Amino acid sequence: MVEGVHFRIEWADPELIGRKALAVTLSDVAAMGGSAKFAMVSIALPPHLSAQFIEKTLGGLFDLAHSCGVSIIGGDTSSSRDSLFIDTIAIGECAAGRAVTRRGAEAGNRVYVTGTLGASATGLMLLERGMKLREANAAEGEIGRQYREALVKHLAPEPRLIAGRLIGERELATAMIDISDGLSTDLTHILEESDCGAIIRAEAMPVAESALDLSIELEIDPLSLALHGGEEYELLFTARPETHSRIEGLSSELGLPITAIGEITSARGLQLERDGKLRPLMPAGYEHKI
Amino acid sequence: MVEGVHFRIEWADPELIGRKALAVTLSDVAAMGGSAKFAMVSIALPPHLSAQFIEKTLGGLFDLAHSCGVSIIGGDTSSSRDSLFIDTIAIGECAAGRAVTRRGAEAGNRVYVTGTLGASATGLMLLERGMKLREANAAEGEIGRQYREALVKHLAPEPRLIAGRLIGERELATAMIDISDGLSTDLTHILEESDCGAIIRAEAMPVAESALDLSIELEIDPLSLALHGGEEYELLFTARPETHSRIEGLSSELGLPITAIGEITSARGLQLERDGKLRPLMPAGYEHKI
Repeated sequence: MVEGVHFRIEWADPELIGRKALAVTLSDVAAMGGSAKFAMVSIALPPHLSAQFIEKTLGGLFDLAHSCGVSIIGGDTSSSRDSLFIDTIAIGECAAGRAVTRRGAEAGNRVYVTGTLGASATGLMLLERGMKLREANAAEGEIGRQYREALVKHLAPEPRLIAGRLIGERELATAMIDISDGLSTDLTHILEESDCGAIIRAEAMPVAESALDLSIELEIDPLSLALHGGEEYELLFTARPETHSRIEGLSSELGLPITAIGEITSARGLQLERDGKLRPLMPAGYEHKI
Repeated sequence: MVEGVHFRIEWADPELIGRKALAVTLSDVAAMGGSAKFAMVSIALPPHLSAQFIEKTLGGLFDLAHSCGVSIIGGDTSSSRDSLFIDTIAIGECAAGRAVTRRGAEAGNRVYVTGTLGASATGLMLLERGMKLREANAAEGEIGRQYREALVKHLAPEPRLIAGRLIGERELATAMIDISDGLSTDLTHILEESDCGAIIRAEAMPVAESALDLSIELEIDPLSLALHGGEEYELLFTARPETHSRIEGLSSELGLPITAIGEITSARGLQLERDGKLRPLMPAGYEHKI
């Protein structure tokens, strides 16, 4: 995570910056069906940040590690000329041969996604317009709730470690990835590695409430944010149709929405079905542009 | 490794920058008596560097990994606003309970160091004065050889992986560290963690030929560079006196100088014995000041 590329210092408390730096890496372990065990963290600190800042950053990172049962076993610190850099690396484990890759999707599989989509990109737009988490916390009623959903999703994403591990252990998925670049781009990675295509149904997409409710204020298309918005850190996976009831069971067990949003096709390419019509869906994942 | 902090782009070919980024991390595995197995590398690339530059950087890194039997198993790439960052993390293994820490030095132990010291700091001074490796390669005779020794030691340090592993496997050391900050500073780490002191004998120090031979031209004190110069990546360890002949055996076996340079004392503090007199030796390891 690079200051000025992935985040701005003024957007969040240092605890959240540290937390997210680890969360996004643990998400990669979840996406392979692994159990996160160890992590290492290297930080390069520019002169404009205080020792207190870095203590808080590491504090947030260690808190998340602790709550996930992850041991921080190494790393390094350095100075930097002008940007804060945080590099995290995680090690997870799974039973031999059980790692879920991007390679096993097959025609006839269904496409699933955990949680809801679009809130992280909505949160990023709020941040870019100058909103702070403390203002969102102070905002009352329904609108305050939506601001918070969007900002928290962007600033403090929750890696889906338990869901990922159980999907792996129970062999529910044929392929899996986490949504870091946007559903359209990340699904394309699965399709390319599995040599197949997919149809996504617009009506089935679990669009986040905040993306829907703030769409007029922000002049955004909520479906577009859900299809292309990055940094969701939800799990996107494919599964055989006969697995469906077990996936529904996992969803209730965890209290986590897991939604079937489409099907894998033998014909290559990604298509979107909307109002009964099919049209090509280009990978247009969010690119960092701050 | 951070551009502008640990290196300058114009000092070396990208292959050497990549190579060193991994070498310094593998050196940490060697210093614990481990066998290096896996490494991960994260790179943040500023706009002013080309794709070709980064390919060459990674090429140098992968070449070293290959020659050391280390598999690169992960990592990440990112953009950066203006500096190149390379973070490497390595995983090594050793028999359970055999890792050599900084904590086991005991009064009566001897202090040993591999290789010779002072060349890396000498090389850094040459680089700071504008010398390039290709000029050193073109320089003839004895002076050319000294330029090359110093520059190569600084730009392409050799992690002491075989020596470190064998010292660990044969249980030759009671404590060990690699010299990254300078002998005086790194030995102080061992002394603090082992709660003891040491006397280093100036006459015994294996000062690098280049530091000796270039001392007049560069107006340097070669002993001072050997005592305080950083980025040597030689192994500094303590051992029981009865191990001495086995350490000499290892030295001949590897064709690598391993020199006894002093003794561990129960009284705390680090002292230098020179011309029959003892005086305090302050940790004054080289600090990056480019």
